[in-house]
Amino acid sequence: MNIDRHDNNPIITTSDIEPSRSDFKVDGVFNAAATKYGDEIILLLRVAESLKETLADEVTYPVLEQDEDGNDTLVIKTINKVREREHYDFSDARVIYDRSKKRKTVALTSISHLRLARSKDGVHFEIDQKPTIFPQGKYETWGIEDPRITQIEGVYYINYTAVSPLGAGTALIKTTDFITFERVGLIFPPENKDVSLFPEKINGKYVAYHRPVPNAFGNPDIWLATSPDLISWGEHKHLLSVQEEGWENGRIGGGAPSFKNDKGWIHIYHAADHNNRYCLGAFITDINDPSKIIAKTNKPILEPEALYEVEGFFGNVVFTCGVINEHDKVKIYYGASDEVMALAEIGIEEIYDALGIN
Amino acid sequence: MNIDRHDNNPIITTSDIEPSRSDFKVDGVFNAAATKYGDEIILLLRVAESLKETLADEVTYPVLEQDEDGNDTLVIKTINKVREREHYDFSDARVIYDRSKKRKTVALTSISHLRLARSKDGVHFEIDQKPTIFPQGKYETWGIEDPRITQIEGVYYINYTAVSPLGAGTALIKTTDFITFERVGLIFPPENKDVSLFPEKINGKYVAYHRPVPNAFGNPDIWLATSPDLISWGEHKHLLSVQEEGWENGRIGGGAPSFKNDKGWIHIYHAADHNNRYCLGAFITDINDPSKIIAKTNKPILEPEALYEVEGFFGNVVFTCGVINEHDKVKIYYGASDEVMALAEIGIEEIYDALGIN
Repeated sequence: MNIDRHDNNPIITTSDIEPSRSDFKVDGVFNAAATKYGDEIILLLRVAESLKETLADEVTYPVLEQDEDGNDTLVIKTINKVREREHYDFSDARVIYDRSKKRKTVALTSISHLRLARSKDGVHFEIDQKPTIFPQGKYETWGIEDPRITQIEGVYYINYTAVSPLGAGTALIKTTDFITFERVGLIFPPENKDVSLFPEKINGKYVAYHRPVPNAFGNPDIWLATSPDLISWGEHKHLLSVQEEGWENGRIGGGAPSFKNDKGWIHIYHAADHNNRYCLGAFITDINDPSKIIAKTNKPILEPEALYEVEGFFGNVVFTCGVINEHDKVKIYYGASDEVMALAEIGIEEIYDALGIN
Repeated sequence: MNIDRHDNNPIITTSDIEPSRSDFKVDGVFNAAATKYGDEIILLLRVAESLKETLADEVTYPVLEQDEDGNDTLVIKTINKVREREHYDFSDARVIYDRSKKRKTVALTSISHLRLARSKDGVHFEIDQKPTIFPQGKYETWGIEDPRITQIEGVYYINYTAVSPLGAGTALIKTTDFITFERVGLIFPPENKDVSLFPEKINGKYVAYHRPVPNAFGNPDIWLATSPDLISWGEHKHLLSVQEEGWENGRIGGGAPSFKNDKGWIHIYHAADHNNRYCLGAFITDINDPSKIIAKTNKPILEPEALYEVEGFFGNVVFTCGVINEHDKVKIYYGASDEVMALAEIGIEEIYDALGIN
């Protein structure tokens, strides 16, 4: 595949990020939203943090708690790994599983917030010293993750995964200046991640891709919904399924917000196989009907190959939440190994080739 | 608990229902929606059917399939129980599980449609000879289940569970005459059941309870959403959790649409424990804010005790989708053992007693 990883990759690493507290370390800076703002490219980074010092036989993790008045406090929880090993499974770097409840997640090992970064050239970024958007309230006690930014009618909409023991849903925040932010609330209830908004109304309605994860049956597939107001969503239609075999037989989900082209709407999405190896693919839909897929890639357009994509906090992952298309060159910003930010460029013609529509 | 089961219980049984095809038998008539329509009480019954004759070592089940033009055909599938016993688990009367995929449901043993029944006295019903609403299209290939009817501004809205291999979501149909029905589509994507609409706008918005079932973490809890148009839903708020212990430690879900009273909105809901024993409870919310629970019952107001509630197609289940409140007497129509329809009456004062607010 003719895709160019940038020479500076990874373009942002954990050592570039000031922790939000002196007793915290940064475990990952990844899965950033991307948008043009004035003459700058803005990334809204997911920053995952945990306690800097932990005893060898303990697992500690930060969670947000609310007091009776609804005020948030970040508290540190501790589990003794040795004493509790029969109850809990610590083998996944990202989460702690309860062995007794069908491998249900009981905690995340880190808590994520969102951090703004600005750049003139799209490669060198000036990163805020403090969290830009921090988890807030009972739907975000385990953190906020994987943002997407979409400019619609002059307003920048930031959707992100709101994570708590109630489940992982999708919430919305809006801003016009990236200084003040207005919380809109949960737009998709748990379990629903990988939401991406379209930058304009289609047939008079706002449009989003979303990825519900049903429990009893059904797969983590991509669905489409419409909205009259960006707050309430309906007219749900199934769009794209997990495949039986190959690189997308585990889960798939929307990636960066779709961008328009003379041949249709192009969407860069992610897929993981049963071994949790995450790759990127692309599909193109009808310009007037984004529920109608014209073509999709049969092979990944980007797969974990570089060292920083193969090894890291959670290796073998490339995952995008934001692309920027200028002059038919597409900048794909992507998280690698749930630890660093990277950049790859691909021409529209190469995407058409991969889609088999050239 | 001072609740009166009707002497005629069960008021509707499978022998009262004409199968939709001569080669089908009726496995259950249960979980009916209920509403007043003119001087009649209308029930919209869930009718579950399967093939009348099946070889001893086979399981057969009907599913809807679509051809290339989108036309529906009901086809009969067959699994050899003996040959396939290593792959499939047939121990649950309602579903067939795949042993290899963490007990994922691969098929339902029956397919449900909706059937209208009318009554002057609320006890003796005249039942349509044919299906009133039959599954249609790719979101309903495994059937349509557990309807609720809510009259809003002169229109009757029927929401029901749309079941297919894509998951179980909630769809909406509207009617003004119970003769012609207009399909609105999926209002909550999978997995989401037990939706109930409020009969009027509150603070300028339509309101619904819903019950998403997250996969990775989070429980099958009751949530609230609002809508500007009954099609698109947002402003999701968590309302009521599964309990750690007792009769509601497995799953909970909304039951009949809420009805208004001078003390608030009263909602009869269901809860099941880890043994799939389903009971009914009640809660009351603030009249202007149905996300604010004033009180809930600590014990069931109805639990499986009568023979038809304890034994049947799937025993130890009482489950309501419709109640009718007249002159402070509440008629609870409920499915028993996933097989028959029953009726119980309870006074408002008894509900207040159970809620501890008298």
